[in-house]
Amino acid sequence: MKQIERAAEIAAEWAATDPKTRATVITGVADALDAAGPSLIEIADAETRLGTKRLTGELARTTFQLRLLAAESGSYYDVRIDRADPSWPPGPRPELRRYRTAVGPVLVFAASNFPFAFSVAGGDTASAWVAGCPVVVKAHPGHPELSRRTASVVVEALGRWGALLGLVEGEAAGVAALRHPAIAAAAFTGSVAGGLALARIAAERPVPIPFHGELGSVNPVVVLPGAARSRAEELAAGYAGSLTLGNGQFCTNPGLVFVPSDSPFVELVAERLREVAAAPFLNDRIASGFQTGAARLAAIPWMREVVRGPGAQLLEVALEDFVPEAAEECFGPLGVVVRYSRLSDVLPVLAALPGQLTTTVHALPEEASEVEALRPVLADRSGRILWGGWPTGVAVTAAMQHGGPFPATTSPASTSVGTAAVERFLRPVSYQDWPSHLLPEPLRDDNPWDVPQHFS
Amino acid sequence: MKQIERAAEIAAEWAATDPKTRATVITGVADALDAAGPSLIEIADAETRLGTKRLTGELARTTFQLRLLAAESGSYYDVRIDRADPSWPPGPRPELRRYRTAVGPVLVFAASNFPFAFSVAGGDTASAWVAGCPVVVKAHPGHPELSRRTASVVVEALGRWGALLGLVEGEAAGVAALRHPAIAAAAFTGSVAGGLALARIAAERPVPIPFHGELGSVNPVVVLPGAARSRAEELAAGYAGSLTLGNGQFCTNPGLVFVPSDSPFVELVAERLREVAAAPFLNDRIASGFQTGAARLAAIPWMREVVRGPGAQLLEVALEDFVPEAAEECFGPLGVVVRYSRLSDVLPVLAALPGQLTTTVHALPEEASEVEALRPVLADRSGRILWGGWPTGVAVTAAMQHGGPFPATTSPASTSVGTAAVERFLRPVSYQDWPSHLLPEPLRDDNPWDVPQHFS
Repeated sequence: MKQIERAAEIAAEWAATDPKTRATVITGVADALDAAGPSLIEIADAETRLGTKRLTGELARTTFQLRLLAAESGSYYDVRIDRADPSWPPGPRPELRRYRTAVGPVLVFAASNFPFAFSVAGGDTASAWVAGCPVVVKAHPGHPELSRRTASVVVEALGRWGALLGLVEGEAAGVAALRHPAIAAAAFTGSVAGGLALARIAAERPVPIPFHGELGSVNPVVVLPGAARSRAEELAAGYAGSLTLGNGQFCTNPGLVFVPSDSPFVELVAERLREVAAAPFLNDRIASGFQTGAARLAAIPWMREVVRGPGAQLLEVALEDFVPEAAEECFGPLGVVVRYSRLSDVLPVLAALPGQLTTTVHALPEEASEVEALRPVLADRSGRILWGGWPTGVAVTAAMQHGGPFPATTSPASTSVGTAAVERFLRPVSYQDWPSHLLPEPLRDDNPWDVPQHFS
Repeated sequence: MKQIERAAEIAAEWAATDPKTRATVITGVADALDAAGPSLIEIADAETRLGTKRLTGELARTTFQLRLLAAESGSYYDVRIDRADPSWPPGPRPELRRYRTAVGPVLVFAASNFPFAFSVAGGDTASAWVAGCPVVVKAHPGHPELSRRTASVVVEALGRWGALLGLVEGEAAGVAALRHPAIAAAAFTGSVAGGLALARIAAERPVPIPFHGELGSVNPVVVLPGAARSRAEELAAGYAGSLTLGNGQFCTNPGLVFVPSDSPFVELVAERLREVAAAPFLNDRIASGFQTGAARLAAIPWMREVVRGPGAQLLEVALEDFVPEAAEECFGPLGVVVRYSRLSDVLPVLAALPGQLTTTVHALPEEASEVEALRPVLADRSGRILWGGWPTGVAVTAAMQHGGPFPATTSPASTSVGTAAVERFLRPVSYQDWPSHLLPEPLRDDNPWDVPQHFS
C-alpha cells in the first residue's frame, strides 16, 4: 500500500527531528485547518448532521489539541542516565542512557461521532506525530468527503513532510493496512464488536502490534440517598442534559444510573426527556443500531419503559432484577435507571460490571463513609471517576484519563485523550557506554535539544 | 485456586498501603532471604548445577534488587493535577487528578536460568509488589525444591502480608492460573515457543490481560573493520568469555557476530573456545535442546563448523550465504560468525532480523560515519545497544532496558529489569472534581505520603 510505504520511508527521519521542528510542523497543520474551517464545517455538517455550532466547537478543540500536544513534543523522551559506577553493589555498572523513541508508522481508525476530534487530524494522529510517528488513517465511512478534504488540507500544510499522513478507505483496505508489516501500532475508537475484531487481527499478525482500542461504555452513575433526596431536581436536569447531549452519541454517555427506590429522580427525569425533540443520528446505521439496542434492552424481563419520546428513551428496573445484559451499551439517547433499596447491595453489582471509561458519584458531604466504600469499586471498574458532574465532555489536559479496564479499552494502561496519549507510540531504548557525540541528541551530554534529563 | 483467591482478597489493601509500609515489607523479605542464603544456595546448587560462587552473587543481586525497587515505591504514581480552569481555550476544564495504581494480582512465570533473580523472589515479583500487586508465581520445574523453600522464607518474612506470595507448580496449574479471572497481568521469562503459547492464552481470555514475556534473542554483535584490524585479540578474548559465561545460558548471550572477511577474529576465537572445558547445563532438557539446536544450525547450507569443543561450539558462514534460520537462538555456548566484505551489505541483513534484546557495536573512533548509518538500524531491532562491550550482564538500574521488539519480548514498550519494570503493573485513573479528603492519598492537597505531584 503506497500510503504505508511512503510513511515507512519517512519514519526514521521524522523520529529524528528536533522537538522545535516537530512542533512547528504540527502547529502549521492546526493553522491550516483553522483557515480551512468554514469549508470543512460545511462538508462535515452535510455528512454528519451534527450542526455547525457543534462542529465549529469540535474543530476548535481539534486544532487546540494539535497545538497543545505539539508544545509538549520535547518532554516524552523520559531520558534516564545512569553514570557508570564501579562500586555499584551487585557488581560494577556501566553507563546507561535510556530514552523513549517512536515505534514507527501508526494506523489510526477514525470514529464516526467526532468527524474532527477523533478523525483524520484528531487526537490519535496528533499524539502519534508528536511521538515521532507517521500516520495512516483509515477514514470513517460516515464522513468520506470530509476525510478526503481534511487530509488534503493537512498534506498541503505538511509540505515536505506530506508523507506523515496517508488516507485509506474501506473495510478491506483498513484490514490490509492493519496486517501490513510496516505498521507498528494501531489506534481505534468505535464499537466493541469492531474493535475486538481488529484487535484480534493485530494480535495474530506474524509480528503482533499494540492495538489501542477505545471501545464502548455505559458510564455508570451512582446517586447516593442523601443527594437523591436533597438535590433531585438538579440531578434530574443534569442527567437529562448529559444523556441527550449530541443525541446521546458520545462514548461517555451516562447510560446506566443507580438511584434510591424512594427517589423522585425517575419521574423528574422522565418529565424532561418527554420534552426532548427528535435529533438526527449521525447516519442510518447508527439510527437502526439504536432502535435494535433499545428494543433489546426493553425486552429484558422486569424492565419497565418509562419514556419512549421522539428524542430520548428511559427504562427502569429494580436492582434485584438487574441482569448483566442491562449494562450493554445502546449508542444514543437511552438511559437505564436501576432502583436500589440499600447501597450495600449496589456494590457487588458495580464490581461485576465490565470495564468502563467513566463512573460517577453524586453524594452529600455527610455521605463520606458510603463514598469510601464505593470509591475502590469504581476505581477498579473505570478510568475516570467523577464527583458531582456528568461524564460527557472529555477535557484535553495532562491529567485526563480516557480509557479504562477491558472492554472499555483494549489497552487499559493508556489514554486516548490528553497529553499522556503520546506514550502509546513510544518504545524505550538504552545505550550502554556510547561516546556522547554518537548518541541520539536527547541522550547527549551537551543536550542540544534541551530535553529533561534525569540522572542517577 | 486458593493462592489466587488469597491474592485477590489482599489486593485492594496492599494497593492502598503507603510507600513506607510497602518498602518496609519488601525490605524485610530481602533481609530474610539474605539470612537464609547459605541453605538456599545449597539447595539451588543441587538443583541447577550453577555452582555456589555464581549462586551467591545471584542471591546478592536478587536482594539488592528487592531493596532498590522498594526504595522507589513512592515514585511510580506519576501524579498529575490539572487545576480547574474556566477559561481553558476549548471550553472550561474541570479539576482532574490522575495517578497510576496497581492493576491487581500478577502471575509470574519463573525462569530456569536464574533460580533467584528471575524466579520466586526475582525482578518480576519485586516490581509487582512495588506497584502494589500481590503475586502468584508459577514455579520453574528446574528448581522445585528451591522454589518451595524460597516461597516459605518469603511468606514467613511477609507476616500478615503472607498472601502477597502464592506458589503454583506444574504446567496445567500455570495455564489454569493464567486463565483465572482474578489475575490482572502476567510476566514470563523463557523460550519463544513457551512464551508465545502463554501469550495467546492471555489474549484469548474473556477479559484479555497484559502478558509481559521476555522470550529469546541472539544479540547480534557487529565488529567494524577498523576495530577488527587493530583490536582482534582483545575482541576475541571478550567474545569467547561472553559466549561461554554461565555455559552460554543467558538470554543476552552473543550468539551472532558479524566480522570482516579478512579478520583473524574467527581463528583467535576458535583457539580460545577449543580450550573451554565442558560445563553442566541447567538440566537435561536444556542440554538436549542445545544438541538439537546446534545440529540444526550446523546443517544450514554453507555453514562451516569451526569448533566443536567440549565446552563451546563455533560456526561460520559468509554474509552472502546467510539465511534467516542462522539467526535462531540455540540456548547454550554456541556462536555463529557471519563474515562480510562490505559493511553496507550487513545493514539490510540486520534490518531483516527479528527483534532482539541487545545489539552491540565494536568500532574505532574514526569509524563514526559507519556507526551513524548502523545506529538507527540497531535501535530499530533491539532494546539495548552496547558500544565496545559484551551483552551478558544486565545491570539493575533506572536506565536499564531489558526488552526489545517482538519476538525478543511480547511487550516492547516495557522492561523486565531495572526500576522501570514496575510500570508494567500500573494503570492510570483520573479523579474529576473530588473533595480532596475523599481522594486516594497520593492525589490529596496535603499529600500525606509526600509523593511527587506535577501541577498544570
